[in-house]
Amino acid sequence: MVNETQHTCSASSSSKSDGGSSSGSESSKDSSRCSTPVLDTDRHERLREKMRRRLDSGDRWFSLEFFPPRTANAAVNLISRFDRMAAGGPLFIDVTWHPAGDPASDKETSSMIIANTAVNYCGLETILHMTCCNQTKDDITVNLQKAKRLGLKNIMALRGDPIGEEWEEEADGFNYAVDLVKHIRNEFDDYFDVCVAGYPKGHPEAESYEADLRRLKEKVLAGADFIITQLFFRSETFLKFMKDCQAIGITCPIIPGIFPIQGYHSLRQLVKLSKLEVPQEIKDVIEPIKDNDAAIRNYGVELAVSMCRELLDSGMVHGLHFYTLNREVATTEVLKRLGLWNEDPRRPLPWAVSAHPKRRVEDVRPIFWASRPKSYIYRTQEWDDFPNGRWGNSSSPAFGELKDYYLFYLKSKSPREELLKMWGEELTGEESVFEVFTCYITGEPNKNGHKVTCMPWNDDPLATETNLLKEQLEKVNRRGILTINSQPNINGKPSTDPIVGWGPSGGYVFQKAYLEFFTSSEIVTALLKVLKKYELRVNYHIVNVKGQNITNAPDLQPNAVTWGIFPGREIIQPTVVDPVSFLSWKDEAFALWIEQWAKLYEEESPSRMIIQYIHDNYYLVNLVDNDFPLENCLWQVVDDTFELLN
Amino acid sequence: MVNETQHTCSASSSSKSDGGSSSGSESSKDSSRCSTPVLDTDRHERLREKMRRRLDSGDRWFSLEFFPPRTANAAVNLISRFDRMAAGGPLFIDVTWHPAGDPASDKETSSMIIANTAVNYCGLETILHMTCCNQTKDDITVNLQKAKRLGLKNIMALRGDPIGEEWEEEADGFNYAVDLVKHIRNEFDDYFDVCVAGYPKGHPEAESYEADLRRLKEKVLAGADFIITQLFFRSETFLKFMKDCQAIGITCPIIPGIFPIQGYHSLRQLVKLSKLEVPQEIKDVIEPIKDNDAAIRNYGVELAVSMCRELLDSGMVHGLHFYTLNREVATTEVLKRLGLWNEDPRRPLPWAVSAHPKRRVEDVRPIFWASRPKSYIYRTQEWDDFPNGRWGNSSSPAFGELKDYYLFYLKSKSPREELLKMWGEELTGEESVFEVFTCYITGEPNKNGHKVTCMPWNDDPLATETNLLKEQLEKVNRRGILTINSQPNINGKPSTDPIVGWGPSGGYVFQKAYLEFFTSSEIVTALLKVLKKYELRVNYHIVNVKGQNITNAPDLQPNAVTWGIFPGREIIQPTVVDPVSFLSWKDEAFALWIEQWAKLYEEESPSRMIIQYIHDNYYLVNLVDNDFPLENCLWQVVDDTFELLN
Repeated sequence: MVNETQHTCSASSSSKSDGGSSSGSESSKDSSRCSTPVLDTDRHERLREKMRRRLDSGDRWFSLEFFPPRTANAAVNLISRFDRMAAGGPLFIDVTWHPAGDPASDKETSSMIIANTAVNYCGLETILHMTCCNQTKDDITVNLQKAKRLGLKNIMALRGDPIGEEWEEEADGFNYAVDLVKHIRNEFDDYFDVCVAGYPKGHPEAESYEADLRRLKEKVLAGADFIITQLFFRSETFLKFMKDCQAIGITCPIIPGIFPIQGYHSLRQLVKLSKLEVPQEIKDVIEPIKDNDAAIRNYGVELAVSMCRELLDSGMVHGLHFYTLNREVATTEVLKRLGLWNEDPRRPLPWAVSAHPKRRVEDVRPIFWASRPKSYIYRTQEWDDFPNGRWGNSSSPAFGELKDYYLFYLKSKSPREELLKMWGEELTGEESVFEVFTCYITGEPNKNGHKVTCMPWNDDPLATETNLLKEQLEKVNRRGILTINSQPNINGKPSTDPIVGWGPSGGYVFQKAYLEFFTSSEIVTALLKVLKKYELRVNYHIVNVKGQNITNAPDLQPNAVTWGIFPGREIIQPTVVDPVSFLSWKDEAFALWIEQWAKLYEEESPSRMIIQYIHDNYYLVNLVDNDFPLENCLWQVVDDTFELLN
Repeated sequence: MVNETQHTCSASSSSKSDGGSSSGSESSKDSSRCSTPVLDTDRHERLREKMRRRLDSGDRWFSLEFFPPRTANAAVNLISRFDRMAAGGPLFIDVTWHPAGDPASDKETSSMIIANTAVNYCGLETILHMTCCNQTKDDITVNLQKAKRLGLKNIMALRGDPIGEEWEEEADGFNYAVDLVKHIRNEFDDYFDVCVAGYPKGHPEAESYEADLRRLKEKVLAGADFIITQLFFRSETFLKFMKDCQAIGITCPIIPGIFPIQGYHSLRQLVKLSKLEVPQEIKDVIEPIKDNDAAIRNYGVELAVSMCRELLDSGMVHGLHFYTLNREVATTEVLKRLGLWNEDPRRPLPWAVSAHPKRRVEDVRPIFWASRPKSYIYRTQEWDDFPNGRWGNSSSPAFGELKDYYLFYLKSKSPREELLKMWGEELTGEESVFEVFTCYITGEPNKNGHKVTCMPWNDDPLATETNLLKEQLEKVNRRGILTINSQPNINGKPSTDPIVGWGPSGGYVFQKAYLEFFTSSEIVTALLKVLKKYELRVNYHIVNVKGQNITNAPDLQPNAVTWGIFPGREIIQPTVVDPVSFLSWKDEAFALWIEQWAKLYEEESPSRMIIQYIHDNYYLVNLVDNDFPLENCLWQVVDDTFELLN
C-alpha cells in the first residue's frame, strides 16, 4: 500500500514518483532525511487536508457531535464513550460550547476540558465550538490561546443562541459569527481550521433564505474552511441548500448535520431550540408511539439511514456529521447500517496515540504504561520533544509526577462499591490478593461470585493478546507472581494480524516476550539465582518501593520489545523496556496499590494492612526474553524459580 | 554477551547493575535517553582506555608500525595492506614521521596523509609520530591542529634522530621529547593520547641507563599515557627494563617493540640507525645464510615467536608492538603462531567503519556505496553530524562531489594494463561488456584467459555473501542486467553467522533482498510493466544519467534493508536504500563508466564509444523485495521481464 502512506517532507518536491519527468541533478543536493518515519498520514495532516484527501480518494467518512456533561461522573462516562466510539473511526468529533457551563474553565465538565481530553487522551481529532455569547474580544483571544496551548487545532465559530428570547448586543464583543471568524484569522493567522454553521432552511432570525446564504458566503470569505449544517429532516432540503451555496460561489466542503431521532422529548426540545418544524409525515408516525422509546429509536434509525443513503447516493455528499446527544446506540447503529463504522480498525501503532500536534512524531513509548496510556500522556504532557524513531533520540526531560490519581480522565470507571466486590470486602492474607489477580486473568467469578474486570493497573478486561498467555498467567498468579503486564513473543506476523498487527499493510511485526509482576522478596531471591542461568538470554529489572534496583541491562540502553518492518520505510520500534523510565513507572505502579486498593479500606483495618505490607515489601520485576525466534523461556524461568524454592 | 558491550552514558551512574544497592528515587529524574545504541565499545573509547580495558580483562593484543612510502604507487599498496592487516585486529597502528618526506604536507606519501587514510578510510586506531626535528614550536602547533582536524587522536612524541651525526639545537623549537609532550598538553590539554619511546638498553646518547630511565619518567610525568620501546633482541632485556621502570615509579603501560628479522640488509640498516648491537648468537646464525632471504625470514619468525612467548609468559606483558617495515608476511606469521591474529573478525556493523571521532555515532549508511566505502567516507567528510540509529535523523548536508577519482586511497589497485586485460583491449559491442560483468561474477577467465577480479564499481572480488547469489547473477548478467550490487534476503540468522552476521553475539540479523544494475531502456520499459504486478512488494528506483527518475517509493523515506535485533538494545538498521542519496550515487556510478573504463581507450575509438553509449543510454536500477520472509522475488521479476520482451 505504498501510496496509502505517502507523505511529503519539507525538502521534497524533486525526487517523488513522477513517472519519468526530469528531476535533474539539483535534487541530489537536497537532504533526504525526513524527520519522521511516517506511518499514518492522518497524524500529519490538518483536518481540512484530511477532508480534502477523503474527497479526492472518494472515501466516505463521518463525524460526531457531543456536548459537555453536567457532572464529573458523567464526564468519566463520556470519556469512555469517546474511547469506544473512536474505534469506529470518526474523522473528528466536536464539543459544543455551553456559555452557562463555564466553558473555558478548568472544570472537568467544561467544553474546553472535554475537548482537551478528547484530543490528548483519546487521540481524537476534535473541533471546539466557540460562541460570541457573554465574551469580550479579549476573553475570546484568551480562550483561543488556551485552546491552542491544549493542542486544539479546530474551532467551530458561532454566534450562539440568545440567552433570552432575543440576541442582545455584546459590548466589546462580537454579534456575528463572521466577526469571530475574522478575529480568529487576525489573531491566529492560519493556525486553526475554522468551521462555520450553515442553515439549510435559513437561520431563523435571518430576513430571508437568500440573505442567510449571503451571510454564509461572508463567513467563508472571512476564512472559514468548511461548513457543518443544522439538522434537517429531508435529504432534498440539504441537497437544494448545497446547490444554492454552490450557485453563489461557496466552494468549501459542506457537511450535512444528521439527527437520528432517539426519543420524543429530545426531539421536541431540539426542535424548539433550533426553531425548526418537524414535517407532518414524521409527526404522524411519532405521536402515536411517543411513550415507546424503543419504537421511536428504531424509527429514528430507519429514517436517518434512508436519508443518509439518499445524501450519499446523490454523489454530492462524502461526509456525514451526527448529532449524537451524547448517546451511542442510535448513531452507531446508523453508521453500521451505512457501512461507515470501521469494523476492523487498523492500529497505526500498538498503543493509543494522542492527537496533540506536538505529539505528531511520537512513535516510541516504554511498555510499562501499556495499560495506562492516559497516565503516560499526562506525565509527559510538559515534554517539548517526543521520541521519533528511537527512544534514545529524545532530549525530553523527566517524567512528571502522578500525584492526582483522581483526575477524571485517569479515574476508574467503577465506583468504590464495585471495586470492593471485585477485589474483596475483606482480605485475609496475601493469598486473597493472589486470588484477585488470578480471577482477573481467568475471567472466573471470585469466591463471592463477582467477576474481576479491572485491576488498579488496568481499568479494562484482559487484552486479546494477553489472552494468548492466559493459561500460564493463571498458573503463576496463583503462586504469587502477580502479573500486571505481559506480551508474547512474535516472530514476524503480518502487520494485518487481527490480534498483534499494527501499522500499514504489507509489513511484519515482531515482539520479544515480556513479563512484569510484583512478587515477594523470597521469590526474588530464588529468581535471581535462576536468572544467572539465563544471563545471555533474559534481561531483567527488579526494584522495590524504596528504589533498590537490580538489573543486568547494559547501562541506560533501552531494549526494543516491539518492532515492525514495513515496505519502503525505516524500522519502527514503538515499544521499549527502558531502565530509567522504569524507575518512574515503579513509583506509579507501587502507589496504585495504596491509591486504588488500600484506600478502599478503613485505616488500620487488616485488609488495608495486607495491601500496605505488599506495597512495602514486594518487588516489581520485569523480564525480557531476547531470543524472540525461540519458544518463550520466561515461563521456564518462573518454573525453575519455584522448583528452587521447594 | 551483555557485559561485553556495556557502555556508560554521561547521564548514567545510578541505574546500572549493582546487585541491590540503593539507586534511590533521584535516579528516576535522570534522562534515560542515551544518544547512541552502543554496539561496539571500542568505537567510543580512547586508546588508553582500550588498553586499560584489555589489561583489566586479561585480553592480549598487538599493534603495528608502518613508515610512509616513497611513491604514490607504494601508497596505494600500503593502504591495501592496512585493509588486509586490519582484519587481524590490531589495537592500533602507528605511522612514523619522516622529516625528509615533508611529513605534514598533503602529499599522498606524507606521514600526515598516510595516518589520515588509516584512520578515516581504513578505520584503524592510529598513532601519528611527531618529532622535534626541523620544526619550530609554531610549526608543531599548526601540525598538531591539522592532525586533530583530520581525526587523529594519538601522538607519539619523539625528539627524532639527528639529521647529521649529532643533534643540532632547534631554534624556537624543542630539543627533548619531554618538551614536546609538555607542549602537547599545554596546547591541547587532554585531547591527544600521548605515547613516548622507551629504550630497554638506554638511549644511545644518554649519559647512562639510569639517567635515561629518569628521562623516561620525566616524559611520563609531563603527560605521556604509555610507552612503546625500541626493539631489542632478548626478552630479558625488556623484562629487566620494565622492572627498572616500575622501581622508579613508572606505572603507565610499557609496550615492547618487536622486530621480526626479515632480511640481512634491513637488519643491518636498522641496527645502524638505532645504534643497537646484534647479539653474537644471532649473528652466528645469520651470517652464513645472509643471501638466503627465505631462510633468514624463517629464522626471524622463529626468534620473534619464542621471544614473544617469553614476554607473554612472564605475565608482565599484554600487548606487543611490531616493527613491520611495511611488510606483511613475517609479522602476520608471528601473530598467527602466537594466536594473536584474529581469525574470525566479528564485524561491528555490516560495513567498514571509520575511526574519525566525529563518526563515532555513525551507524547507518546507504547501501549504494557498499563496495566503495572509501568513496562514501570521502564524500561525507565535511558532514558535522552522522546518522545515529536512523538515517532519517541526521541533519547532515548534501554529499560532496567526487571529482577526483584518482585520489590514491580511492584508486584501483590494478594498473591500466591489467584493467585492459580484464575488461577487454577492444570491445566489439554491448555484449562484450555483458561478458566482462559475467566473468567477474563467475570467476571464470575471459576469452583471452584473464580473470576479471575487479570492476569499476568494485575493486575487490565478489563478496562471500554475493556468492550466495552467484548462479542467478550469472544468468541475468549474460542477458544485459549488469549487476553492481546485491544482497540476499535473510530472515533472522544468528549475529555470529560467518557470512552475513555482524554486531554483538546473541542477536539476529535480517536483510531485504536487494539488486542494483545498469540496463538498457528497452529492458527498463518491459521491467516497469512487470513491476506493476509487484507494486505492493517491490520498491524500485530507476534513473538515467540525466537524472530522469522513476520510483514507487514513498517520498523521501529511506527503506531499511539490513537490520539487527540484539539483547537489551534498540534495533540497529545499518543499511538503507534512500531515494535522495541514490541520486548522488547515480552521478558517481555513471561517472565510473567513463572515469575507470572508457578512459582506458583512445578517444573516438570504438571501445570507448561503446562505453560512452552505455553511459549515455542505460538506466541504473535498484530493486528491494520487501517480503524478506518469503523467497526472493527479484529473480522472478527479471525472468518476467525477459519473458515479456520475447
